[in-house]
Amino acid sequence: MSLLDETIATIAPAHEGAIADARARQARMTKPAGSLGVLEDVSVQLAGLAGECPPPMPEPAALAIFAADHGVHAQGVTPWPQEVTAQMVANFLAGGAVVNAFAAQSGADVVVVDVGVAAELDEVPGLLVRKVRSGTADMATGPAMSQGDAIQAVETGIEVARELVESGHRVLLTGDMGIANTTASAALICAFTGADPADATGVGTGIDPATHARKVEVVRRALDPHRPDAGDAIGTLATVGGLEHAALAGFVLGAAALRVPVVLDGVIAGAAALVAQALAPDCVAACVAGHRSSEPGHAIALEHLGLTPLVDLKLRLGEGTGAALALPLVQSAVRALREVATFDSAGVTEKA
Amino acid sequence: MSLLDETIATIAPAHEGAIADARARQARMTKPAGSLGVLEDVSVQLAGLAGECPPPMPEPAALAIFAADHGVHAQGVTPWPQEVTAQMVANFLAGGAVVNAFAAQSGADVVVVDVGVAAELDEVPGLLVRKVRSGTADMATGPAMSQGDAIQAVETGIEVARELVESGHRVLLTGDMGIANTTASAALICAFTGADPADATGVGTGIDPATHARKVEVVRRALDPHRPDAGDAIGTLATVGGLEHAALAGFVLGAAALRVPVVLDGVIAGAAALVAQALAPDCVAACVAGHRSSEPGHAIALEHLGLTPLVDLKLRLGEGTGAALALPLVQSAVRALREVATFDSAGVTEKA
Repeated sequence: MSLLDETIATIAPAHEGAIADARARQARMTKPAGSLGVLEDVSVQLAGLAGECPPPMPEPAALAIFAADHGVHAQGVTPWPQEVTAQMVANFLAGGAVVNAFAAQSGADVVVVDVGVAAELDEVPGLLVRKVRSGTADMATGPAMSQGDAIQAVETGIEVARELVESGHRVLLTGDMGIANTTASAALICAFTGADPADATGVGTGIDPATHARKVEVVRRALDPHRPDAGDAIGTLATVGGLEHAALAGFVLGAAALRVPVVLDGVIAGAAALVAQALAPDCVAACVAGHRSSEPGHAIALEHLGLTPLVDLKLRLGEGTGAALALPLVQSAVRALREVATFDSAGVTEKA
Repeated sequence: MSLLDETIATIAPAHEGAIADARARQARMTKPAGSLGVLEDVSVQLAGLAGECPPPMPEPAALAIFAADHGVHAQGVTPWPQEVTAQMVANFLAGGAVVNAFAAQSGADVVVVDVGVAAELDEVPGLLVRKVRSGTADMATGPAMSQGDAIQAVETGIEVARELVESGHRVLLTGDMGIANTTASAALICAFTGADPADATGVGTGIDPATHARKVEVVRRALDPHRPDAGDAIGTLATVGGLEHAALAGFVLGAAALRVPVVLDGVIAGAAALVAQALAPDCVAACVAGHRSSEPGHAIALEHLGLTPLVDLKLRLGEGTGAALALPLVQSAVRALREVATFDSAGVTEKA
């Protein structure tokens, strides 16, 4: 049995008893019922994932930035040169990127994983070189990668999730780097949700209207006439996905199989989670949507996943920044369920 | 010169030079321009408040919970008995409330201030007894308090802000406790923004439609026929406000005078900030809206203040919970401005 098949087979539904216990405890805590809004749902979800109420604190945290390049860059879908992917990897390793600042503030360890950067990178502390290939092929003219490459990248993500949990981490956060990866994200979102490219394709890190129009057409061309079959998740991933999307899908599956929560960043993670959901629908029970980015496709993906984003501040950076910002909210939600007194224990009168 | 007058006179506009420096630095940081959304604005605002770029890290943090009772409770505007105010003060001091869990997660010190609880409370560690009076009078039948009481409560809030900054805190968070205080908040919001009681009055911690209708009528009766003059902030506060609103208004003014940021919690803080804004419009430069609560009046208050909430998760608890959740976001915003590399320093190519 392959690592992927074994992982999928391990993923099980949330534990209904723990969910019921968490809901009952939320109702007895010294606060009006329901007054913690979305955070009550998060705490209940993580109890269901852990299979116990209260669930363990989601800490320590690890944020994995999967980096890869994209052949579709050749279509002129972004004003950023492709070498920025490798330059930003160096920036992450030097601690100079926004995700470094946010992860440090939230107390998350950062690891960078090269799953397909189109440059030779040396393995140094903080960087795992697990390159499947040097970037994808141009999906506008053919499949982005072979199914074998896609599976290898997915399994790389599973392995990274396993390694991070083995090293003691109890919550995983998704990060990504890959110039042109919002184009692949839009294509994946269209393939899995049926959305039209014009609705799912955004301005990414910032492009002019002409470039945006070209980007929409590139996504449309990649999907037509051989529109990938959403029922064939690996085939779809190979046709229009990126190597970091594949690895992120595996990262989500790996976390879910280990029943460890995974905080999703933005549109790239959302697109990858659609792949994971197609492979193992129950994996969504492990997913918390860290934030909603400005990319229109992200909202479409979140709706398809049935996830409510925790942070919604018009961020459109990626890297894992939205996941890092959301981590303290997730931890606060669980901490409340674990530590807050009940009406009985605190001697507080309930409402009439 | 009174403490209030002196404080108002000290509050000055944001520093334009530091704002320009912060905007320029955001544009050179290794990320697409504007990609941090609302958090870029927060970092720029705090640079303007500090008068230097980058501004100091907003830490350590102190969350002050101002507690008081409300004579309008007699009108049946809430199903919660009045003694819950004092019981929750005990819960805060025992560390059993949601705000304790959230503040612990965010690393904020908690102090409770009795500015008007209708019960005798002993000064113990963590509780400052600064009672102005044992709760307000019923605003449905007359002024909630005298103008002298209102000023004394405002000055209490200024003093608490000063004490917390003197003890080394570099960011203040608002908290509150007072059964029936969403009724007073709605009245203040109507008085300062011109909103209709039907639009600004919500279900608070949870009430049935009949109670809600009564609550709207109570707010309307308190405002008519002697509708308070929004130009007379202290008079309006005395007529329909609460002692914790008064203290919170002073807390905001005190923070602004010391050029220390203050993270506002929900609708009670929003109503109090309207009082502060009326007294010293420049104080809003020190205010960050921690979250948007479910109370409809809160959105009205935030719009009048010109503030964008950081957290929007359907919370309706008060206590300072929304401010505590927002603190790491504020710190992340400043940390990014302080620590992220520029394109030049990191050797990252800018977009074409």
